[in-house]
Amino acid sequence: MAQTIDSKRLYGALQELGDIGSYTDATTGLVGVNRLALTDSDRDGRRLVTGWFKEAGLSVSIDAIGNVYARRDGTDADAAPVMMGSHIDSVPTAGKFDGCLGVLGALEAVRTLNEKNITTKRPIVIAFFTDEEGCRFGTDMLGSAVATGRIPLDEAYAKCDRDGISVKSELERIGFLGEEPIGPLKPHAYLECHIEQGPLLKSKDLDLGVVTGVQAICWHELLIKGRSAHAGTTPMSFRKDAGVASAKINLRMREMTASGDYGPDMRATMGAIRPTPDMINVVPGTVTCTVDLRNPDDDAMKRQEEDLIAFYKEVEKEEGVSIEWKRAAQTPRIRFNESIQETISRSADDLGIKHERILSGAGHDAQEWSHLCKSAMIFVPGEYDGISHNPRELSTEKQCADGINTALTTLIALANE
Amino acid sequence: MAQTIDSKRLYGALQELGDIGSYTDATTGLVGVNRLALTDSDRDGRRLVTGWFKEAGLSVSIDAIGNVYARRDGTDADAAPVMMGSHIDSVPTAGKFDGCLGVLGALEAVRTLNEKNITTKRPIVIAFFTDEEGCRFGTDMLGSAVATGRIPLDEAYAKCDRDGISVKSELERIGFLGEEPIGPLKPHAYLECHIEQGPLLKSKDLDLGVVTGVQAICWHELLIKGRSAHAGTTPMSFRKDAGVASAKINLRMREMTASGDYGPDMRATMGAIRPTPDMINVVPGTVTCTVDLRNPDDDAMKRQEEDLIAFYKEVEKEEGVSIEWKRAAQTPRIRFNESIQETISRSADDLGIKHERILSGAGHDAQEWSHLCKSAMIFVPGEYDGISHNPRELSTEKQCADGINTALTTLIALANE
Repeated sequence: MAQTIDSKRLYGALQELGDIGSYTDATTGLVGVNRLALTDSDRDGRRLVTGWFKEAGLSVSIDAIGNVYARRDGTDADAAPVMMGSHIDSVPTAGKFDGCLGVLGALEAVRTLNEKNITTKRPIVIAFFTDEEGCRFGTDMLGSAVATGRIPLDEAYAKCDRDGISVKSELERIGFLGEEPIGPLKPHAYLECHIEQGPLLKSKDLDLGVVTGVQAICWHELLIKGRSAHAGTTPMSFRKDAGVASAKINLRMREMTASGDYGPDMRATMGAIRPTPDMINVVPGTVTCTVDLRNPDDDAMKRQEEDLIAFYKEVEKEEGVSIEWKRAAQTPRIRFNESIQETISRSADDLGIKHERILSGAGHDAQEWSHLCKSAMIFVPGEYDGISHNPRELSTEKQCADGINTALTTLIALANE
Repeated sequence: MAQTIDSKRLYGALQELGDIGSYTDATTGLVGVNRLALTDSDRDGRRLVTGWFKEAGLSVSIDAIGNVYARRDGTDADAAPVMMGSHIDSVPTAGKFDGCLGVLGALEAVRTLNEKNITTKRPIVIAFFTDEEGCRFGTDMLGSAVATGRIPLDEAYAKCDRDGISVKSELERIGFLGEEPIGPLKPHAYLECHIEQGPLLKSKDLDLGVVTGVQAICWHELLIKGRSAHAGTTPMSFRKDAGVASAKINLRMREMTASGDYGPDMRATMGAIRPTPDMINVVPGTVTCTVDLRNPDDDAMKRQEEDLIAFYKEVEKEEGVSIEWKRAAQTPRIRFNESIQETISRSADDLGIKHERILSGAGHDAQEWSHLCKSAMIFVPGEYDGISHNPRELSTEKQCADGINTALTTLIALANE
């Protein structure tokens, strides 16, 4: 019979961690979380969780980029561990679940093993990784990318926030510049439970998602240069309107997603739009704006990016503007391990939890570990269309419990392989 | 034979006044002018010009809204004066010509009359008006609108800048809260020379424009409310993208101007666009943006506004957003006096100055005085496609001289009517 966690204890821990860095939104009155990486709030959160790790009898170590690992021994001292982790840093306007569920859920899983005197062959390592959000130092998945070798340690240390404060100096300041070297840690498997951050599971009335991978991502930053001009005195034929140029690109992306030419799951977003001089009676002279492209299919992503770049050229001609763009991020489709996905499915079936396969729309630490060991993820549905990075972010105690109970069964299976 | 001014003296005065409030643009290295209404720089500019008025033998008075009048007597003490004026306040990123040409040109005209011992039947009054630009206290043509009765004095006094500082307190502080009451001053005619602030005259190789009137203006401020959402995890069908909604409105305005359905001279601009949260990977939840509509035909303006408002409703349905809008400004088409236009044309012909009729795309003090007395304007072309509200704003000494010489001949004619 499947082991089950104490869901009330888990939910209580999520609330307690969520109180660190909490703030009240001036407009809505809702209480949110602001625990940016390597701030005092992040330090306080790290201390709280590390204390819980120690209370659970785990041996805690910190690596050179501030990732925290908590180890529970297995019966085979030489076996590679199974790692279960996520992150506890947040965006500036967060809820209490993103990242924290994966870390505190892993802790709850280990507490359950301890209380039921269940041993595993392999060691279990719970981990949380530095600056997954990337909101402060500009690079998401920073800690896991360093730990798994994609980003060199020195490059990560040198990254600075808007005030010019470096990652390394902040790690030192908050007391989380650890001594464990980067490199030796190679898990047998990596498992991460995370909130979906989207509406799909809830809209299908599902309790859980077995994550098949992460869609390909491509970001562009655009600088459109037209010519600012008086809105009253400048005939339409004399204009080089950078705002109209950005609007054309925005609507072209919408058309591309609707066309089906790039598969049914292309997503495209112009999230940032900043015209200058941004005045009611002046034609925008320049616009900086952003493009976020997603697709589960690498070939379709390649085509959609090429076609959009060709459209930039069309807009340059039509509007008499110049468009400078740079690729600010690009990651290919990530595929998670098939056999772990099957184990997750069987575990959920055993617990009577309704589930389906789902592709992740967002990036996660698991994509970094997938380059080093077999990896997989479990998604937990969210209320309010899965709103996230927002004080309204909410998964119920039942939803969290379904995710972590499934993770616990999967963890036991992986740790005894 | 037509009288002509000392164009070098005029151009020197423009440079000297332009040095007050000058700044160097950090990006371009160009020297611009920042002389916002009722600031210390505006006070210094007012003192300089008022001193010049007195040197020219004019009697200076200041009214209760800080408009400055400089009177040269005529031979008929009972005749209503001819007024020639404009403004010397500036936008924060101005050149040296906007407004100042009309004021210093009037001064140069009077200096010329003085030097040539030319008397006129009617008195001549040179005037500059408070906060024509409206950049500081939010209402353009403030001084002339008060002087001509459109805006009550108390309402104008109570207007505040971003720091909550009122018009009245600033008038007092800079010493320009005058004693002349509002109301009694009813000129025989009003004449204003101003830079075109657009490309038309120059593109037609003309030396001067006889202004037929001011096109109708309508401003909307929009608040588009959608739903912010994760750009990676939110399927296109779940989105309420306020940015896409604003882009649709922007391109619809473009289509409307190109359609010809609202006449050949409809102009439409979305100058300000501000999404929140304005992040690369978040679907914009709200956008505040602006609409600036112009048309020389009042009926066409009415139709274009109605059709655009109907389109807001379409966008609400298509995108699942709500669009709140308010009319931030609305002025009907202004028609300037026909007989003064003819006098201007004849004066320019006498001087061999190439001219055509032109409609003003921007608002000017003359539109306020046109409600009180017969009024007209002369436009001077500008280099660089008539760029204005910009340090590059430039009309040559010859262009300025053509405008003020034509004005002088017209002024003499009006003052002897």
